[in-house]
Amino acid sequence: MPAPLRVGLAGLGTVGQGVVKLLREEAAALALKAGRPLRLARVVSRTPRPQVALGGAPFGTDLAVLIDADDVDVIVETIASADADAALAAAKGLLAGAIETGKHFVTANKALIARHGDALVAAREAGTHVGFEAAVAGGVPIINALTQGLAANRIEWLAGIVNGTCNHILTAMARDGQGFGAALADAQRFGYAEADPTFDVDGIDAAHKVAILAHLAFGAPLALDRVHVEGIRAIDAEDLAHARELGFRVKHLGVAERGAVPRAHPCLLPEDGLMAKVDGVLNAVQVHGHAVGSTFHVGPGAGAAPTASAIVANLIEIARGAPPALPAPAEEVATAPIGALRCRHYLKIPAADQPGVFAQCAELLSRHDVSIESAIQRGATRRGGAGAGAEWVPIVILTNTAQEAEMQAIVAALGGLDGVAGPIQRIRVADFAGAV
Amino acid sequence: MPAPLRVGLAGLGTVGQGVVKLLREEAAALALKAGRPLRLARVVSRTPRPQVALGGAPFGTDLAVLIDADDVDVIVETIASADADAALAAAKGLLAGAIETGKHFVTANKALIARHGDALVAAREAGTHVGFEAAVAGGVPIINALTQGLAANRIEWLAGIVNGTCNHILTAMARDGQGFGAALADAQRFGYAEADPTFDVDGIDAAHKVAILAHLAFGAPLALDRVHVEGIRAIDAEDLAHARELGFRVKHLGVAERGAVPRAHPCLLPEDGLMAKVDGVLNAVQVHGHAVGSTFHVGPGAGAAPTASAIVANLIEIARGAPPALPAPAEEVATAPIGALRCRHYLKIPAADQPGVFAQCAELLSRHDVSIESAIQRGATRRGGAGAGAEWVPIVILTNTAQEAEMQAIVAALGGLDGVAGPIQRIRVADFAGAV
Repeated sequence: MPAPLRVGLAGLGTVGQGVVKLLREEAAALALKAGRPLRLARVVSRTPRPQVALGGAPFGTDLAVLIDADDVDVIVETIASADADAALAAAKGLLAGAIETGKHFVTANKALIARHGDALVAAREAGTHVGFEAAVAGGVPIINALTQGLAANRIEWLAGIVNGTCNHILTAMARDGQGFGAALADAQRFGYAEADPTFDVDGIDAAHKVAILAHLAFGAPLALDRVHVEGIRAIDAEDLAHARELGFRVKHLGVAERGAVPRAHPCLLPEDGLMAKVDGVLNAVQVHGHAVGSTFHVGPGAGAAPTASAIVANLIEIARGAPPALPAPAEEVATAPIGALRCRHYLKIPAADQPGVFAQCAELLSRHDVSIESAIQRGATRRGGAGAGAEWVPIVILTNTAQEAEMQAIVAALGGLDGVAGPIQRIRVADFAGAV
Repeated sequence: MPAPLRVGLAGLGTVGQGVVKLLREEAAALALKAGRPLRLARVVSRTPRPQVALGGAPFGTDLAVLIDADDVDVIVETIASADADAALAAAKGLLAGAIETGKHFVTANKALIARHGDALVAAREAGTHVGFEAAVAGGVPIINALTQGLAANRIEWLAGIVNGTCNHILTAMARDGQGFGAALADAQRFGYAEADPTFDVDGIDAAHKVAILAHLAFGAPLALDRVHVEGIRAIDAEDLAHARELGFRVKHLGVAERGAVPRAHPCLLPEDGLMAKVDGVLNAVQVHGHAVGSTFHVGPGAGAAPTASAIVANLIEIARGAPPALPAPAEEVATAPIGALRCRHYLKIPAADQPGVFAQCAELLSRHDVSIESAIQRGATRRGGAGAGAEWVPIVILTNTAQEAEMQAIVAALGGLDGVAGPIQRIRVADFAGAV
């Protein structure tokens, strides 16, 4: 048996512990698959005392030891911290150290990859293999699929449910008719959402992941600020019910289309597609390649064991001497801004319950050359809206395909109509050619 | 740029042509991803005249040329023939030649892999990289996922819709209420089934694929005769309707569970699972790993371009110098025979429309310690069954978990009851722990 791959582990939170357990419990099988043993050589963590048996690996609290150690071939970075910036800085320092000392590097830190693409480029140039399967969609081997299984394809688009918290909340809202706040509170109580949920529910986490996927699929630069981001706070249970009536489900998606700016926002998904059926904390990514057509990849998006599964897959790849997978060559088409996006749109317009408001709205859409695919309007049901005491009813419209910039103008103009009472909800429809 | 990978292509049917097109049209991108150009060096086919531009590659009809050529690094085998045995023999000869002359080998031929596992072992020993991503589930990169993305896992089970013809027929039967014969005839008319559909509808194709997947997942020997095989000819539209009433869909699955004999047969799938929603000619494989839990992989199961996508992914892997992925180490648990299988069962019992038959059936099940989870019985609806002119009604029973061997005895005993009129339909329920 050849020399073991010596693993230096940084971080001993739930994911780090998951890695330790997986390496220990499956040692024999992993050694056969990797062609050599995967040996835990050193562990560094802020925890003063490890909560898991380390099998004799030296333990300490100084990250620099991992960089300096000459008995470590690959650094596995699973640093968790309430202070995300501190964790990111530590991860960045470790990656720089790994590059400098000729070690390989595996991480679950999506921010490290999405926000420091330059480090990834430096690593490639230095021959440092950087594995980050765990950074996107947890246990789903989507990076493996994109860079290897589907490597023969020119990717046309990909779209994914890549944030389990958003999907859990939207699933609960749709099932129970809860509002966003109540569903979020429940999710927090059961551990599906953080105390500060911003990173998840405002779409930032999904934006990180879609930036990484767009990089791999299109060679797009790794830059988080290129991603158009919206969260799910403004979605209410009524939207989900209306969407269902129109034949859709609402999911928060990360989307990357060839030649367009990557984006993360809520979407209406046709109910007969597979993506609409992915509920709860599952993650799912659909990839459309020019040769293969659509493939669809589903699995757990988080959790210690699924994340460890992804990290150890990267370790096996490194142990086998497989070269790191490369992103697609950078596309040469200009990247269209978000304003150029074309899709159908769901509009919910809080309207005064008086004759003519629907006609006004329809006339306005028509003036902008946007036609109506279907609409829902019922009698007065609720009090509220702009004028205290005014009766109002939601007008729900599904438009035909229209351009984003045009729709922004339309929403502004609708808001100025006399009979329109409050903020207008607009949700894009996921109109992807060839989706399954 | 390093030296090109020189590809010798055997076979110029639709798949072979798809490979030629993909290599030509994506040459620049593929060279970047592969680290060197993928060059079509030679083509051999029985077709006297190629139907596709070969970019100057020498063309001939003698397979031996590919073996002897010293300007070929990898043989791609896409030989198609109405005579499957002849195609298999030719493919086998090519693989043997490739091993002998130190060439790598990529094939879409599932029979070659499933029936000649010894050749695969010989290739591994000789350092010949054998790629067969295209042999299972067409464009779905499931072999890549199993052997790499999910390599850190001890696979517990996998189950897949791996035959598009069966899935197309069952989908059409469920949608239109057609019988098997009519749905098959339609499928043949539209090119979804062969003139001789045996290989597909009798489950043989799926058995090949599940043998390969079981080998990769559990290190099970590659032996087709180990697989328990049943097809879909006996399923009728009534079964699909009853299954739906009970909350299930019917699909033909290939199933491999750790410690059990691999199998291919129709299954009832819970309607709220993702697998039940895979319709038409799509393929889908669900894999349950001990660490990751369930992942689910969907895509086109056939077609020239999806198959070429899988073949060229293997070529990229070979060009990059990635070592071939290894199967899981052989499990040491004894393999339980099909009789030991435990699951719920759907039974449709054609019963005389007279009092007491249901009670007799229930009593018989109870005597075998099998309880009833739910049942459907309606008034007389049709003429037919054993006695000409006798009124009979189907009794539909969903049992609780019972052992296969016990159920076989029960079905035989039910057939002997006085009030039972004809052959009893039995379909297993896909009861997989942790399915999504």
